[in-house]
Amino acid sequence: MLPATHPLIDGRTTDAPLVRAYRGERPERLPVWFMRQAGRSLPEYRALREGTGMLESCLTPELASEITLQPVRRHGVDAAIFFSDIVVPLKVAGVDVDIVQGVGPVMGSAVRSRADVDALPELDPADLAPVQEAVARCVAELGSTPLIGFAGAPFTIAAYLVEGRPSRDHLRTRALLHADPDTWHALLAWVARTTITFLRAQVEAGASALQLFDSWAGTLSPPDYRAGAAPHSRAVLEAVADLGVSRVHFGTRTSELLRDLRDCGADVVGVDDRIPLSVAIERLGPDVPVQGNIDPALLTAPWPVLERHVREVITAGRAARSHVVNLGHGVPPDTDPDVLTRIVALVHDEQG
Amino acid sequence: MLPATHPLIDGRTTDAPLVRAYRGERPERLPVWFMRQAGRSLPEYRALREGTGMLESCLTPELASEITLQPVRRHGVDAAIFFSDIVVPLKVAGVDVDIVQGVGPVMGSAVRSRADVDALPELDPADLAPVQEAVARCVAELGSTPLIGFAGAPFTIAAYLVEGRPSRDHLRTRALLHADPDTWHALLAWVARTTITFLRAQVEAGASALQLFDSWAGTLSPPDYRAGAAPHSRAVLEAVADLGVSRVHFGTRTSELLRDLRDCGADVVGVDDRIPLSVAIERLGPDVPVQGNIDPALLTAPWPVLERHVREVITAGRAARSHVVNLGHGVPPDTDPDVLTRIVALVHDEQG
Repeated sequence: MLPATHPLIDGRTTDAPLVRAYRGERPERLPVWFMRQAGRSLPEYRALREGTGMLESCLTPELASEITLQPVRRHGVDAAIFFSDIVVPLKVAGVDVDIVQGVGPVMGSAVRSRADVDALPELDPADLAPVQEAVARCVAELGSTPLIGFAGAPFTIAAYLVEGRPSRDHLRTRALLHADPDTWHALLAWVARTTITFLRAQVEAGASALQLFDSWAGTLSPPDYRAGAAPHSRAVLEAVADLGVSRVHFGTRTSELLRDLRDCGADVVGVDDRIPLSVAIERLGPDVPVQGNIDPALLTAPWPVLERHVREVITAGRAARSHVVNLGHGVPPDTDPDVLTRIVALVHDEQG
Repeated sequence: MLPATHPLIDGRTTDAPLVRAYRGERPERLPVWFMRQAGRSLPEYRALREGTGMLESCLTPELASEITLQPVRRHGVDAAIFFSDIVVPLKVAGVDVDIVQGVGPVMGSAVRSRADVDALPELDPADLAPVQEAVARCVAELGSTPLIGFAGAPFTIAAYLVEGRPSRDHLRTRALLHADPDTWHALLAWVARTTITFLRAQVEAGASALQLFDSWAGTLSPPDYRAGAAPHSRAVLEAVADLGVSRVHFGTRTSELLRDLRDCGADVVGVDDRIPLSVAIERLGPDVPVQGNIDPALLTAPWPVLERHVREVITAGRAARSHVVNLGHGVPPDTDPDVLTRIVALVHDEQG
């Protein structure tokens, strides 16, 4: 339950279907939003971003807030997800990182030794003013529609720092975890501190919920996840518990880790598209609010095929304590936005 | 059991530890080999390949056989794995495909419509003469050491054909499976026919076992795997059953699919490194020979860390009917070959 008297809760979004479903209630309208709804699939986004780098866009309040609001206006989704990137807190802290078109986050130098970790700069909350301004601008326009703040989970951010760039197998990351556990845990503790500061800033500026994305968690075996990643995700989720907003925990290819994601202290577990939602709910038990898991691959299928799939997801979700409809992964860049709008209409026609 | 009277079985490798372990026996020596042992990690390979493209190397019998034999000489492994690539049968059939350095297999044009599928050329067994000559050269030198033939599984090869190049999420592939099942199954049936021809050619030339690699199977949810991929892997494995050689079935990120891999008609299931071997054996039951699953990420860890891990894998394997030690994925290119030699010595010191 949200402590309704928390100083950060102004009551604005308390009754919003998304906030209620995250709390474990069954609102009349089944809520829906899409991971990466703000961004690449929208022509108005591509127009706005033209000539501006990704990280610069995230740190320019007018741009970040406008981009965050675009999909809410267009699709009528039940939440805005703050337009940001998981490396934004690193950038603000002073880490040499850029997002290279067609590649992803690239570090000036990889972090692999204890000395590298000790040299990482601490994030000063005051430097997050542009992020807080962007959040405040969104919230002012959103009214009773909640804004979800977000951050990458410590493991995923550490994987970028260790590899220096996106990687398919994360061999160096997984090697460090086993070869030098002290350095490993020092690195993840630094990321966790940075992440806590970043998440708290978003809630203080008006975010009504938080999502922790562990994009690469599925690269770890369950024992490695439990030993190397979970303690630091738990540290993050526990350190924001006092803020009174629901905490969603999500990662791709985590079918073997769903209970672990929950046990890190999550209020809601996001389910990816590599597992039927019904199976995920069996594993989590009937008391856990879930989010997901329309297969993004079906967004290009003929509507009757996609519609059948969305209805299956909705039906499966009824076995959970509560359900927020979402994709099982981010919106692919070449998605026809009208298909997303049509899914929102379909979901909203359903009883919650 | 192998039909010892099969005309292709000359008795040369019948008592080899690998062949016995694949049959479900417990040979005195625990057998070990490494996926991708022939290739990038060996300086003698890099010297030999210099100036020759990947597919040209695969189709030049002197080169392909020499590359296949290099790791057997160097490491003393219990098997040679035929140096090839999963797109070799496509290339020989006449499909426009190349392997681009740093990218992987790239198709001249993607295969996405029924017309595209109908235009795919049939593989003429006679065109596999260079492959058969390479296999025969290997076998002549290997003596009682078995050669493992291999092919990509229909789903993985189809994923390359549909995407046109390597992909992380296989969105188009998964979309086709749902959006146009007739085209999908026609495509996979073509790949299965091609794969059967390719595998039979290797056994006819002297291979003592076969491995079907479904590199991308883990990109599918279990229901999608069962509906879209398994029937075609089963068709391949059943069509080579009469040859009397053991059939290994392997894919990465298949922890949720291990019983399905077995149920396609495999004699041995390969286990990747994202699941503890003990858990994999619990899922498969005690009657299934297993292969795996040293974590390649640990090949760069200090020896005591790697040694402990290898010993854990060996210990876990004792719960299976039989066990062939291997990595859970291919040898990474930057692996120190001496580490692999040291693992072989460690494994061979163990009671089988």
